[in-house]
Amino acid sequence: MDSVNLKKLAQILNLSVSTVSKAFGGSYEISPETKNRILALAKELNYQPNFYASGLRTQKTKTIAVIIPEIDNNFFTQAINGIESVAQEKAYHVLIYLTHEDYTKETAFAQHLQNGRVDGVLISLSDGTKDRSHLDLLTKKNIPVVFFDRVDEEAVATRVTTNDYESGYAATQHLVDQGCKRIAHLYFSKNLSIANYRMEGYLQALRDNKMPLSKGLVVQCTNDNKTNFNLIRALLSKNKRPDGIFSSFERLALHCYEVSEELKLKIPKDLKIISFSNIETAALLNPSLSTITQPAYEIGRKAALVLFDALEKNTATVPNEHIVIKSELIIRRSTTK
Amino acid sequence: MDSVNLKKLAQILNLSVSTVSKAFGGSYEISPETKNRILALAKELNYQPNFYASGLRTQKTKTIAVIIPEIDNNFFTQAINGIESVAQEKAYHVLIYLTHEDYTKETAFAQHLQNGRVDGVLISLSDGTKDRSHLDLLTKKNIPVVFFDRVDEEAVATRVTTNDYESGYAATQHLVDQGCKRIAHLYFSKNLSIANYRMEGYLQALRDNKMPLSKGLVVQCTNDNKTNFNLIRALLSKNKRPDGIFSSFERLALHCYEVSEELKLKIPKDLKIISFSNIETAALLNPSLSTITQPAYEIGRKAALVLFDALEKNTATVPNEHIVIKSELIIRRSTTK
Repeated sequence: MDSVNLKKLAQILNLSVSTVSKAFGGSYEISPETKNRILALAKELNYQPNFYASGLRTQKTKTIAVIIPEIDNNFFTQAINGIESVAQEKAYHVLIYLTHEDYTKETAFAQHLQNGRVDGVLISLSDGTKDRSHLDLLTKKNIPVVFFDRVDEEAVATRVTTNDYESGYAATQHLVDQGCKRIAHLYFSKNLSIANYRMEGYLQALRDNKMPLSKGLVVQCTNDNKTNFNLIRALLSKNKRPDGIFSSFERLALHCYEVSEELKLKIPKDLKIISFSNIETAALLNPSLSTITQPAYEIGRKAALVLFDALEKNTATVPNEHIVIKSELIIRRSTTK
Repeated sequence: MDSVNLKKLAQILNLSVSTVSKAFGGSYEISPETKNRILALAKELNYQPNFYASGLRTQKTKTIAVIIPEIDNNFFTQAINGIESVAQEKAYHVLIYLTHEDYTKETAFAQHLQNGRVDGVLISLSDGTKDRSHLDLLTKKNIPVVFFDRVDEEAVATRVTTNDYESGYAATQHLVDQGCKRIAHLYFSKNLSIANYRMEGYLQALRDNKMPLSKGLVVQCTNDNKTNFNLIRALLSKNKRPDGIFSSFERLALHCYEVSEELKLKIPKDLKIISFSNIETAALLNPSLSTITQPAYEIGRKAALVLFDALEKNTATVPNEHIVIKSELIIRRSTTK
């Protein structure tokens, strides 16, 4: 069975090898009837055109790459589900690359993808990303790049995010409305534009409510769980500790729960918490967690649709636009008065 | 820059095109010094050998495929992290395919992978898998296949799982020890060998404790959240409802929490719950959830190591063995007396 090749198929069908080859390449020179005859026989004999040979001919890999910081994160798994739903519709394959927030890895992946392994790239930047020359190289090689969630604001490309500024504002305003006087903000990195927008929303809400900003209440967290746990314990052990927390990153809110238990702080009585989160169990936590829930699936899906639009138009240029898909503020027990 | 090719490199270095080509293929015919000169210039000029051309030459894709039922599931994201850690060490690329429990999709993916797109496959079967002929075809095409978690017991291949039978037994015994008299079991599918082992453990623990089996307490759930919610509501609304639940699937335990809240059943007073689960928030749930936690990362990593061992030996034959990595029983408040 393994010896079935183009020549054998051509022989059996009494066609030229080049006709059979063109049929697999989807050439319009071959009539639909002939194509069907060829494909039917190929199926019967379980013949698949050699992947490399067809790639060399068509210059299409039918593959996209998704580069993300991590996969054990509900936002990214839901986004991948959205991306994958489009890829399956288009009969495309999906390569997943995890940077683990390492800029060197991100650069190495992008460098490697230049050789034509994929037709296009979807990326959510790692925290350590310093510049985008590694991504510009992809575009130069005719491989379109679309950003989602952690986008490069300066890139002349499509960037799909949620309404980070408004959501940060709404979360903070909600804590004010629930009576909080000292509202802390936990964020992940100054390198990420989405983190900056969320913080801008927080700062503006404080200003609009004439609440002074206390710098000790704005805490930059890291990529390490233990460090974050200690940072949050230090914050909540302060003499003038916060009575409300707006967390811009799901895992940080979970640490707040753990630290509160250790310090015997009652949520929401002693401390109210709201967080960006796509966690499935938010409603089942003790107490249930108020969240800003991002449309992660839709963000992934939209980014993929933009990418496939470019692929279908055979261009590496994607529209220079910022697409915003709104988050939902879901009030639960962690912020009740 | 885009016009750099083998010929240009050869010209500049005053070497033959075939020498340069062999250097990229890693041929031992070329001296290390020459290789280094070629690679240094390639780097300087940002040249990457054409992906297809090198693939045709080496017959290696440096890519593996991971076929799984779903990705928004903590077990699978942690397993992918384990797989990916090995792939990064080996400088391999990882394609992810989601079957969404659809046997037709699983077959189509396997069919498509026969054409040499990947060097090897890791698979966790979909619920609907009826036979393994689609996977046998891969092996015939010299592509090794390793099973993890949802394995095909009949396959002459490596199968990496946890100790499902012992864990099911231990979970049930724990409920008995905590005073439960009517223990229900929720499972996902009769097609999955791991589900059957977990149930066997449950049945044996009942027998060893001389507790009669009540068929109404063994509930087969589906792939649909709403259906499962209703099945569990029916179970917990019974006249003689269970006082303990052993769930073999994380999401089913979360439905038990939701239904209990609706029916005003107190966990653990009215109902004790223990579940297979890799959920990050188990300790933060209301109440915290007792779990059988699988070493998901290690299972993924081990399966990948077996696959790469075959790839390095250039064989599609992987050892015919069942590798078991033990789960941990973690007692929390959902099963206290």
